[in-house]
Amino acid sequence: MSDITRVALDAMGGDNAPSEIVKGAVEAVQRRKDILILLTGQEEVLKKELSQYTYPKEQIRIVNATEVIETAEPPVKAIRGKKDSSIVVAMKLVKDGEADAFVSAGSTGAILVGGQVLVGRIKGVERPPLAPLVPTLKGVSLLIDCGANVDARPSHLVQFAKMGSIYMESIIGKKNPTVGIVNIGAEEEKGNALVKETFPLLKACPDINFAGSVEAREIPYGNVDVIVCEAFVGNVILKLYEGVGGALMKKVKKGMMSTLRSKIGALLVKPALKATLKDFDASEHGGAPLLGLKGLVVKTHGSSASKEVCNSIIQCVTFKEQKINEKIKASIQETQEEERESE
Amino acid sequence: MSDITRVALDAMGGDNAPSEIVKGAVEAVQRRKDILILLTGQEEVLKKELSQYTYPKEQIRIVNATEVIETAEPPVKAIRGKKDSSIVVAMKLVKDGEADAFVSAGSTGAILVGGQVLVGRIKGVERPPLAPLVPTLKGVSLLIDCGANVDARPSHLVQFAKMGSIYMESIIGKKNPTVGIVNIGAEEEKGNALVKETFPLLKACPDINFAGSVEAREIPYGNVDVIVCEAFVGNVILKLYEGVGGALMKKVKKGMMSTLRSKIGALLVKPALKATLKDFDASEHGGAPLLGLKGLVVKTHGSSASKEVCNSIIQCVTFKEQKINEKIKASIQETQEEERESE
Repeated sequence: MSDITRVALDAMGGDNAPSEIVKGAVEAVQRRKDILILLTGQEEVLKKELSQYTYPKEQIRIVNATEVIETAEPPVKAIRGKKDSSIVVAMKLVKDGEADAFVSAGSTGAILVGGQVLVGRIKGVERPPLAPLVPTLKGVSLLIDCGANVDARPSHLVQFAKMGSIYMESIIGKKNPTVGIVNIGAEEEKGNALVKETFPLLKACPDINFAGSVEAREIPYGNVDVIVCEAFVGNVILKLYEGVGGALMKKVKKGMMSTLRSKIGALLVKPALKATLKDFDASEHGGAPLLGLKGLVVKTHGSSASKEVCNSIIQCVTFKEQKINEKIKASIQETQEEERESE
Repeated sequence: MSDITRVALDAMGGDNAPSEIVKGAVEAVQRRKDILILLTGQEEVLKKELSQYTYPKEQIRIVNATEVIETAEPPVKAIRGKKDSSIVVAMKLVKDGEADAFVSAGSTGAILVGGQVLVGRIKGVERPPLAPLVPTLKGVSLLIDCGANVDARPSHLVQFAKMGSIYMESIIGKKNPTVGIVNIGAEEEKGNALVKETFPLLKACPDINFAGSVEAREIPYGNVDVIVCEAFVGNVILKLYEGVGGALMKKVKKGMMSTLRSKIGALLVKPALKATLKDFDASEHGGAPLLGLKGLVVKTHGSSASKEVCNSIIQCVTFKEQKINEKIKASIQETQEEERESE
């Protein structure tokens, strides 16, 4: 069983559930033999969806869950109240050791709450950060934290830097990744109270490759691998990325369609443009992990299509193979022992 | 004298100083009769620059200032130490009532410090915000605050909302502008401590058109006119706008140049694309005002060319005509009287 990665997949979460989620599960097992998917959701609906596909039947099992948590529901209430929801049932599979990982395109709030309450934190981790990859001109950077726990403390940010470095090195394969802290200027004395307090702690941290402050302007150019920030700021960065990108591409398309001449040009430009812009698409790399939990919890974009779901599932295999949680545990506990010694 | 707007222009600040600054001054007086420019900087240098142009001589006067504040200098030290710098000399002209407005492409930090220390705040204004316009699919929105004073209080944000509304209505001509607060979700209970405290205050504020939370994703679509946030977040938004826009356009250009076919297409697409993207360029609207000061202080982009300098100068005329400062004064003092009455 040890070389099989068991993924509990929330079949009912996200804008395109259950059809695209189920399709993503099928694609994943068609591609890899070493995955077992535990698909949580309404049994009858899922059976019907699955009946459309040809795939190795033993690699997908349905686990019935009658309830669905909607995106607009208050997360804590939803996790507590809907015990038979696809999210709660799937997370319990991770908690009980029946699954190694959890993947969902559903309510971010519910996943963050459930991750902490049901799956539980690794001992010593103060706050589990949500860490999506953002596209850059050089590839991708890890933006940590974009979760729902705002108003972080400096010690949280230091843990984010460590966990993010482990993830970038082990999963993305970036050796000795650089770490930057989001700031409003390059100098050490700049910033808000949180950044000013955190900066020297990161500078003194022996197990990360700290590169100092990073201004938001530089993020898309990809000069820093792990971008550390408090969740409110991370959320603003993640969503503005999407907003500016979307609005600008709309403008570009409108410009191309504005004259007869430009329309002809657009036909000629289109294939090359599409290929280049594909690089600037982080969905190729799967979903965002919620790091520091006892099992792997991955949040994929709410609008995920099957490709992103499939990538997120396959990402879990690497996560397990690379023993990320063991590495995080060691890194966090090492620091705490040092702190105890120096007290 | 009352229908002439007198602008103290820092001729030595910015990447393209003094040549583009002087050129911008010349363009402004060539376009409008009702402007007097007091050009501060090294007299000999400026005389030489001006000698290249034909323009109404009586509309530009040189005020000698021998020192220059560099961008990297610590702002407080620079303002205190360099009494004969182009920034300090120009700001003193505003303070002494010899100029109505100050325009500079120089060090943002020095301008923010100088604005508060030399020009001085309008009575009752707790903190003067820097409020640039950001381009959107519908035109522009005012992003307030992007200054250097981070860790704001709820009462500051309420004043930003009021001052921003006055600016958008009077200068940009947007009737009854909508106000949104940057947040990580649409619901009132979401957000960090600052946003949660500020939200009900904005909701209860009678003289603004509050539209609730705005997620960063929505900003580029222009559904809200005045975007209120704390300076750290505002700075991140402003700079990421620039970063994502720049990186994405680089990608688009690279894509267009990648094959022979796409190169031909690019030639056909270029003029139309350029015209459309011009709309997505906030420099058309001049610089960012530092609101709530006794005179007008305008910061133009460090890389400003003459066009942006000229637009920033002309913006000062509208600012004076529209009596923005009187309106801000009335709005802030009215609230304070109400507060006193209710105590």
